[in-house]
Amino acid sequence: MPDEPDHVVIVGGGFGGLEVARRLARTALRITLIDQRNHHLFQPLLYQVATASLTTSEIAWPIRSLLRDHANITTLLGKVVGVDTENKRVLLEDGGSVAFDTLVLATGARHSYFGHDEWEPFAPGLKTIEDATAIRRRILSAFEKAERTTDAAERVPYQTFVVIGGGPTGVELAGTIAELARETLRGEFRNIDTSDARVILVEAGTRILAGFRESLSEYAYKALSKLGVDIRLGHPVTECTREGVKIADVFVPAKTIIWAAGVAASPVAEWLEAAADGAGRIKVEPDLSVPGHPDIFAIGDTASVVMPNGRLVPGIAPAAKQEGQYVGDIIRARLAGRAAPPPFRYKDTGSLATIGKRAAVVDFGWVKLTGRFAWWLWGFAHIYFLIGMRHRLAVALNWLWIYFTGQRSARLITQGQDVRGSRPD
Amino acid sequence: MPDEPDHVVIVGGGFGGLEVARRLARTALRITLIDQRNHHLFQPLLYQVATASLTTSEIAWPIRSLLRDHANITTLLGKVVGVDTENKRVLLEDGGSVAFDTLVLATGARHSYFGHDEWEPFAPGLKTIEDATAIRRRILSAFEKAERTTDAAERVPYQTFVVIGGGPTGVELAGTIAELARETLRGEFRNIDTSDARVILVEAGTRILAGFRESLSEYAYKALSKLGVDIRLGHPVTECTREGVKIADVFVPAKTIIWAAGVAASPVAEWLEAAADGAGRIKVEPDLSVPGHPDIFAIGDTASVVMPNGRLVPGIAPAAKQEGQYVGDIIRARLAGRAAPPPFRYKDTGSLATIGKRAAVVDFGWVKLTGRFAWWLWGFAHIYFLIGMRHRLAVALNWLWIYFTGQRSARLITQGQDVRGSRPD
Repeated sequence: MPDEPDHVVIVGGGFGGLEVARRLARTALRITLIDQRNHHLFQPLLYQVATASLTTSEIAWPIRSLLRDHANITTLLGKVVGVDTENKRVLLEDGGSVAFDTLVLATGARHSYFGHDEWEPFAPGLKTIEDATAIRRRILSAFEKAERTTDAAERVPYQTFVVIGGGPTGVELAGTIAELARETLRGEFRNIDTSDARVILVEAGTRILAGFRESLSEYAYKALSKLGVDIRLGHPVTECTREGVKIADVFVPAKTIIWAAGVAASPVAEWLEAAADGAGRIKVEPDLSVPGHPDIFAIGDTASVVMPNGRLVPGIAPAAKQEGQYVGDIIRARLAGRAAPPPFRYKDTGSLATIGKRAAVVDFGWVKLTGRFAWWLWGFAHIYFLIGMRHRLAVALNWLWIYFTGQRSARLITQGQDVRGSRPD
Repeated sequence: MPDEPDHVVIVGGGFGGLEVARRLARTALRITLIDQRNHHLFQPLLYQVATASLTTSEIAWPIRSLLRDHANITTLLGKVVGVDTENKRVLLEDGGSVAFDTLVLATGARHSYFGHDEWEPFAPGLKTIEDATAIRRRILSAFEKAERTTDAAERVPYQTFVVIGGGPTGVELAGTIAELARETLRGEFRNIDTSDARVILVEAGTRILAGFRESLSEYAYKALSKLGVDIRLGHPVTECTREGVKIADVFVPAKTIIWAAGVAASPVAEWLEAAADGAGRIKVEPDLSVPGHPDIFAIGDTASVVMPNGRLVPGIAPAAKQEGQYVGDIIRARLAGRAAPPPFRYKDTGSLATIGKRAAVVDFGWVKLTGRFAWWLWGFAHIYFLIGMRHRLAVALNWLWIYFTGQRSARLITQGQDVRGSRPD
């Protein structure tokens, strides 16, 4: 029988961790939420920051202000680097540590280069606000560089954008970059025609949006192609360099490459010496606790949860939220001395992905939608899930603006030191 | 007689440079505007980004999109490092160069440490978007650090904020930081009371807002004090270190120091070997041309313009705009072969400064205003001058939100590498 969960420590203020905290607000429990950043990030819209459609503070909010009204919750800005399971302490990078009775690990994932970490500087992934502004800087700087280049041949790599990975993020990035080039930047340059830009989406598998049913993948393929995206299926990327990518054995010169291919869990499994799957996710018990540690839970992208149908719970926001609510309920039950709830069951709330600003695909299982209507549905769904009425207003205002004018508000090339190149220092 | 100004090169896309470009749009002239950043910055509101009230893209817009409709204007992203007056070429950092018939230098100013550049890492100034986000990061991180610190004495320097310089920027920064601590962050921390924060405004002179008439300085002094700002007059800062500042010979431990004391013009005077004043501003002719170079003009913070009353034209946005319009008219006159307009005369449009979000001082010369009404007037004036209806809407929305809720939207600690410290790397 585990101890009373008097002090609950939650590591990570993403969708999962925040949900646990909310579930345990206004209880007799003392809650401490630790995150290495001061903000919760609405990741599903991160690609819109990377493509200058939204500004950072529209999709990221201080965790402590989200939790300000819950007196039993303390928010700490700090980086967790390990867990002392023996003495039940969370270890911080700065040498400090925090004791826990119950621990929830919701530390998320980073992108994975499948053993080719040397590709990262040339093909950055999209997980954090910094990732997004860095990618935004590269995309916008590439056009500036092309405008400055007098030799037409030299321009080509600056006007070539390669997105690696045909999942929702890759599809959404490719579609939006195409619109940026053909619509937003149109007519602002004098030496180049931005609509000459080539956007290439590379997917090693046989179709894009593999998580959706086949007919939706086909629709997305057509819709993306109509936006001018050049989709390369069935060929893995075999090399990324400063000068471009190698697709199978064809080298494509490109100065801007974005990685949307794979993710790996943060190293929690190593902290706990727990069994993990190929992506580093802890293989948790049916109650999402870590095998051998009934007081330690793992949720979201750090947990590998097998569904009755044998497939894994997907690494998306709704799943992380459901797992957070479930763990919250378990901890409450333990506090109240009630019997634990039945094993976690994931409720599929459907999958959505946009293709540019006029089309989307929605797969609810029982019904599928495409086109303009699906896009509006996607828009309303995301506006609805944005935390805080004000952000909903601001984002809605932005989207309507972009929708009707094609203009994008967040087109800043910041972090001055490399404004003139499409490469970071 | 100067040559025909066929190709006009404008260096700098600030208030002055942009105004020249606008004035010369839709003429037979070929215009090239060169800036080292891709965005025009609405500097009067920069302090609101530094204090998390506004987000970056609300006060900075891509120069090329501001000028997109003017086919005769080309925008280039590039850093100018010199002028070859002999061959009439502007020299770029990357080795390139651009020929000009007429040149307008509107490169602005940086902050000046009066010979103590070693203070800059500890007391950053506020001139660019990067400056603003760095200062925002320091302010917010200081509170996070205080929350993490268990020793009460150790907390004090983290909760002490020193603003150096009692001009409008210093006053506006100090007032807003005080509000941030006493209102916005209130109740979000568990180990500290953010309203314990000390905000110190240091002014070497005998009064703050020295550019305003005395009664307004007194009002501002009272209003700032009411917000809890500790104002130190008549004492210069004699040292800035990682640990704090020395005011006269008293050392004040403080982890967050902001420099709002002095500015120096960019090195254009050196490029041209022209006579400059103490702040590096070129002493221009009555027509704003550089002595000995009738085809080269200097405007805004790069020009030292003496008014009939013997005083200098102030380094503020309206002055830069008026100078830009004037130079635009001269160039048009030359193109048309008309006589040059009479010498430049600065029209004083008044001075404004806010003290927090409920008071302001406005000095129109013929009338002065203080208090709540002045604040609203200030607000409307700035909303009005924001370029683009949409930004006006977004900023107005933000301000009303802050006004009524005390919440601030842009409280992000980004640039992860030092999220946990109040010092940059």
